[in-house]
Amino acid sequence: MAQQKPVERHSGVSLWRQIADRIRVSIADGEFRETGRLPPAFDLADRFGVNRHTVRAALAFLAEEGLVESIQGHGTVIVGGRQLTLPISKRTRFSAGLGDQASSVATRLLNSSELPAPAEVASLLQIAPERPVIEVEEAGYVDGRPVSCSQHFFPADRFPDIARHIAATGSITRAFAACGLPDYLRHSTEVSARHADARERELMKLSPGAIVLETRAIDTDLDGRPVQCSRTRFSADRISLRMTA
Amino acid sequence: MAQQKPVERHSGVSLWRQIADRIRVSIADGEFRETGRLPPAFDLADRFGVNRHTVRAALAFLAEEGLVESIQGHGTVIVGGRQLTLPISKRTRFSAGLGDQASSVATRLLNSSELPAPAEVASLLQIAPERPVIEVEEAGYVDGRPVSCSQHFFPADRFPDIARHIAATGSITRAFAACGLPDYLRHSTEVSARHADARERELMKLSPGAIVLETRAIDTDLDGRPVQCSRTRFSADRISLRMTA
Repeated sequence: MAQQKPVERHSGVSLWRQIADRIRVSIADGEFRETGRLPPAFDLADRFGVNRHTVRAALAFLAEEGLVESIQGHGTVIVGGRQLTLPISKRTRFSAGLGDQASSVATRLLNSSELPAPAEVASLLQIAPERPVIEVEEAGYVDGRPVSCSQHFFPADRFPDIARHIAATGSITRAFAACGLPDYLRHSTEVSARHADARERELMKLSPGAIVLETRAIDTDLDGRPVQCSRTRFSADRISLRMTA
Repeated sequence: MAQQKPVERHSGVSLWRQIADRIRVSIADGEFRETGRLPPAFDLADRFGVNRHTVRAALAFLAEEGLVESIQGHGTVIVGGRQLTLPISKRTRFSAGLGDQASSVATRLLNSSELPAPAEVASLLQIAPERPVIEVEEAGYVDGRPVSCSQHFFPADRFPDIARHIAATGSITRAFAACGLPDYLRHSTEVSARHADARERELMKLSPGAIVLETRAIDTDLDGRPVQCSRTRFSADRISLRMTA
């Protein structure tokens, strides 16, 4: 481990959770990249100054998250956890942005519906309140593992069939193109971080206490008219964002 | 509270910590802005489905963080916690960016030193490895409360007196100006989120389990030559970032 901070007692976070959280960070930092596996539980217990029972509880938890796997004769093998960087730019695209960092990047439409625009959405899309909008919920996958979930609102007057096109093409960019919008631009992105809620943890298979990076974004057409507003939560263990001027 | 999710048992995070974390999020969301205080412990216990002892432990924890204060005859008053938004743009400036959202914004130089550039820093600053750099550590304050801590590296050949000017002016922008650089531009910003480490919690008075937004940035002069690389950690409960094209 890079740093040998003592575990903290009376913090309200149990020892095994503290150990699991630290091992997860070390994996994301690439600390075990060379061997592809964790040191033996005995060594981990020694490093963290806890007993092996605590280490085993931490490893069981990480195994349940799908981050490590205990393989007979091979120890605890790391099966996930590399950190990817999503570029946030004039043209922010999930699949194209992560594409060369993984062997497969995909999004899946979870559900969609049409509804009268809530006040905040109408304001962001610059449409009259209560005008219809299409709401789409998606999940993003890298190498088959979920790394993001998102909620998108499109003005239904302009893009009545957007949900069908997203379902058919698996891509918002291609769906916009199918609706006659070949290009669109990122107008603004607000980034915050917090603990994942129950639905996010379920969709991204995160543990309680996991962190999400949340972006709230507005995209416009080339004339500056908003074409979607969205809210995406990324597993902070898997994704960082990169803004370039 | 906006959402009435049940508390989670066997998650490795104690009930009082879960309650404290949720109340903190609700405060940051401005939920109690109108009254400026929390509902009575009895009501909170009822809402969260826990006993009053658990709620009191959560409130004691939030009081220790400086977020709330129990005032005789006034209940639990909120004394901190409003969320601020820092613009990340071509010209990213801490004090100017937060200036109109608070009555006072300030940075304080914690320490500085000259050292041979570590390989990564030399690469980011585009100088030869081992050339001298000035390292500066700062903390950022909003209304007297710490919200960020940061580490900055400057090429010492070009800005030998930068630390003295930062100490004298309390501003990197003014220190650059004093060194003959009236303007500089943000080249790139990488954003990630994780749990705060012990030093960050100490500097920003955060609780164990608190989240930081971390930015790693490069700034250049108007000719594109790097003038500083920096790493800033913001308390995610207090600060979000906003990128505009």
